[in-house]
Parts: sequence; C-alpha cells; structure tokens
Amino acid sequence: MADAPVRLLERVLQQRVTLMLKDGRELSGRLLGVDEHMNLVLDDADETGPETRRRLGRLILRGSNVITLHAPQGPAAKP
Amino acid sequence: MADAPVRLLERVLQQRVTLMLKDGRELSGRLLGVDEHMNLVLDDADETGPETRRRLGRLILRGSNVITLHAPQGPAAKP
Amino acid sequence: MADAPVRLLERVLQQRVTLMLKDGRELSGRLLGVDEHMNLVLDDADETGPETRRRLGRLILRGSNVITLHAPQGPAAKP
Amino acid sequence: MADAPVRLLERVLQQRVTLMLKDGRELSGRLLGVDEHMNLVLDDADETGPETRRRLGRLILRGSNVITLHAPQGPAAKP
Amino acid sequence: MADAPVRLLERVLQQRVTLMLKDGRELSGRLLGVDEHMNLVLDDADETGPETRRRLGRLILRGSNVITLHAPQGPAAKP
Amino acid sequence: MADAPVRLLERVLQQRVTLMLKDGRELSGRLLGVDEHMNLVLDDADETGPETRRRLGRLILRGSNVITLHAPQGPAAKP
Amino acid sequence: MADAPVRLLERVLQQRVTLMLKDGRELSGRLLGVDEHMNLVLDDADETGPETRRRLGRLILRGSNVITLHAPQGPAAKP
Repeated sequence: MADAPVRLLERVLQQRVTLMLKDGRELSGRLLGVDEHMNLVLDDADETGPETRRRLGRLILRGSNVITLHAPQGPAAKP
Repeated sequence: MADAPVRLLERVLQQRVTLMLKDGRELSGRLLGVDEHMNLVLDDADETGPETRRRLGRLILRGSNVITLHAPQGPAAKP
Repeated sequence: MADAPVRLLERVLQQRVTLMLKDGRELSGRLLGVDEHMNLVLDDADETGPETRRRLGRLILRGSNVITLHAPQGPAAKP
Repeated sequence: MADAPVRLLERVLQQRVTLMLKDGRELSGRLLGVDEHMNLVLDDADETGPETRRRLGRLILRGSNVITLHAPQGPAAKP
Repeated sequence: MADAPVRLLERVLQQRVTLMLKDGRELSGRLLGVDEHMNLVLDDADETGPETRRRLGRLILRGSNVITLHAPQGPAAKP
Repeated sequence: MADAPVRLLERVLQQRVTLMLKDGRELSGRLLGVDEHMNLVLDDADETGPETRRRLGRLILRGSNVITLHAPQGPAAKP
Repeated sequence: MADAPVRLLERVLQQRVTLMLKDGRELSGRLLGVDEHMNLVLDDADETGPETRRRLGRLILRGSNVITLHAPQGPAAKP
C-alpha cells in the first residue's frame, strides 16, 4: 500500500525538483539520475542562497546533504 | 508486548503526521510511504519555521534528519 | 553479572521515562516500544524546552537523538 | 600485553565511574552494565553541568555521546 | 534511463570540475581519479575561500566533505 | 614499506602519548590498550584545556573523539 | 584510466605532505603509512593554526578528520 521513497524518486526522473540542503541552501534542477545513497544528478541546476542565486548547469549532489526533495510537477501516474 | 517503532509507522500510513527535524524546522503532511531508514514520502506537506510557512506538496524526506514523528490522529486500531 | 542496556529498556516498558536529547530538549512519556537502534515509541509524550512545554501524544523518536533515558520509577524487579 | 578498552569496562562494573560527554556535561554513577556500542547502564547517577547538578537515579546512556570514562577507584586486580 | 551519479563522474575524468565543500570552501581542479566513496584526485587544484585563493597543485579530497561537484564543460557525449 | 597506523599504536604501548581531541581538549597518559576503533586505555592521564588541567588517573577514551595521537618518546625500534 | 585516490597515497609515501583538517588546522609531515580509512602516520610533523605553530614529531592522524591532502613534490613517476 505504501509508496517507497526510492520508487517515488524514479517516478520523477526528467522532472524539475527542488532540494533543501543541510547547510541552508536550496538547489533546483532536472533530475537525471539517482542511486541507493540518494546521490543525485541534476541538469540545468540553480543554487539559491539567502541572498544569492547562481547557475550551476549539470552537477552531482551527495545524498547525505539532502533534507527534502520535492517535485512540484508531481510524479507521473503509476503505470 | 512492545510496539516496535517501524510497526507504528506502518499503522499511521495515509494519516497526517508532524515531524520535528534536527535543523529546528517542522514539517507536516500525509504519510504515503516509509522505508527501513525512516526515509518518508509525504503528501500535501507544509513546512513551518520559526517565522515562515510554505506549502511543499509531495516530498521525500531523508530519515536521518528526523528527531520525532507524531500522528495526532493516532494509529488505527490493531487488526 | 552486568545488566545489558537493552535489557533494562525492556524492563521499563509501560513505564514513564524521561529522555535528554542532543538538541537540548527533554521528552517524557510512557514507553510503548523500542528496537535495536534505540528508536522508541512513547505515549502521552510531553516536550520540555528551556521555555516551552507542549503535549505531543503518541510519537516515534529516532534513537540517534538520545543522550540519556531514565525511568524514575525504576525497572520492575527481575523475574 | 595490552588491556583492551572493553575488558577494562568489565573490570569496573559495580564501581562508580565519571563520564565526560560530547555536549560538555559530566555524569557519574555506579556502572551496572555495558554493551559493545559502549551503551551504559548507571545507577545513582548525577548530572553535573557548568552551573547545575541533578540526581537522575538509574539511567541508560548511549555510548556515542561519551568522550571519556574514568573509574577513580580503579579496576579490580586482574584475577 | 537514469544516469547514475558514479557514471557521470567517470565521464568527466580529465575535465576541470568545481566542488562545493561542507566547510564553505570551493575547490576546482582537473579530475584525475575517483573511488566508490567519492574520494577524488584533482590536478592543478585551486582553493577559493570567501576572501582567499591559493594554488594547491595535485591533491586528494575525501568524498565525505563534498556537497556538490559540477563540470562546467559537461560530460563527454555518451559513446 | 609503509608503517600501518595500527602497528605504530602497538609499538608505543606503555609509553606516554598526547592526544588532541575534536572538542579542543588535550589528553596525555600512558597507553595501556587499544582496539580496532582506536578506543584507548590510558593510565596516569591528565586533561589540559585552554585554562584548566586536571588529573584523571586511568581512563577509557572513545576513538571517535581523537584527531591526532603522538608519542614524544617515539616508538620502540622494530624488532 | 583513472588514478584511484588510494594509489596516489601510496605513491607519495616518504614524501612531505600537507593536510587540511576539518577543525581548520593544517598539519604537514613526511608520510610514513596509511590504511584503508585514510588513517595516516606522519613523521617530523608540524601543526599550523591561524596563530600557532608547533612541532609534533611522529604522530597518527585519524582519517575522518581530513579534508584534503596534497604533496607539493608530486607523486613519483609511475613505474
């Protein structure tokens, strides 16, 4: 009955996601990949700090820095 | 005799839960999923900081950020 | 000869316990369950901060946040 | 030739020990039990902060919070 | 369908990468090697702090200090 | 060709060692024992803080608190 | 094609290396040994703080405290 967290991640691949990080920054980007440690690959990524914004392009994020990930567009319907 | 913590989590699926996080924020949302690391999927989530509130929709929360989870409505009766 | 910590936890089930957490807060509640990570289920829980007190009802606490747990009433006599 | 740390712990069971914790507090109490994570059971425990002292009775301490443990009385002679 | 994070790292070998570290510093350098802990070998590395910049040459970076890695030049086309 | 760190520890048993800890304190004492987590047993230990010094006698130190250990006297010659 | 981080460490044995630590200090010394946790043995070590410098001789450093290691002299040519 439950949606496992890792399954949801797979269902938002190719969508734009927003991440809150432990150091207070926020990243957003299109989710290209993920592994079992929640390490992520983002494309067209932006970093948003309290007073800054910068474009980072494609990047790898270590999963241990993540607090939350949300996908405003929502996951694709279950097949 | 004891209620194992993971069992209680399964019994509050689909209910609204409130989470206190290590960074001082509070999240609430409907619990859609959970895994063995206490990674959670929440729906209709809200974040409440000391001076802020924002709607986050569906999100994934890494379990390592959680201090406590409570379900005001209480778990369903044991079957 | 020694009392293993996990055994003592099992012997205070159903009793009221007080927890000191790493973030400086204190929680108390009736201990309903425990697992091998010292994740706990509490009932009728209260949170006591330096200037606050609030009722939380039933909750799950991740064991990694705990410094100490004590049971003012003491464990039941060994069978 | 070496005294393994865990062996020394077993040899000070039933003695009064003093613990320095990572959050700056100091605990003392009679050592009733220990496990392989250095989780401890103390009896007649006192907490000593920079400006406070309070009696805690019997408690469980998670080993990950410990910096040092010392037994002023010294371990019993080796059998 | 997904690009695993570790695969992307292998595809930017020999390219210049920029790293954001947990302590707020930024490092850049040419990526010479990587292992499964995301420990990295960089050549011609520079450190950029809020007010400092220094040349470090070839260095080893422990992966646990990394928040993000990005490769401005982008990965080579998939073979 | 290399001297493994754990081998060096075994070769300074019974010697006086000085430890720098993560919380800024310094401990010194005669090294009586060590295990694979770098948990240590020290005898005749002293703690030296920025403004304090106190005698601690025999103690157990959890290895996870250690930054460096040095043995001013140097290791015994290799057999 | 890639130079694994641990291989590079083995190729700078006997050379002088400089280490940046998580607590902001810097250590340098001749690298005598290393293990799989990146625990290191240094000889003729110096510690350099923002306002201090002291000679430490031979020491053991726990790898978990390391951010970066660099070898100004560079690794020996590959055999």
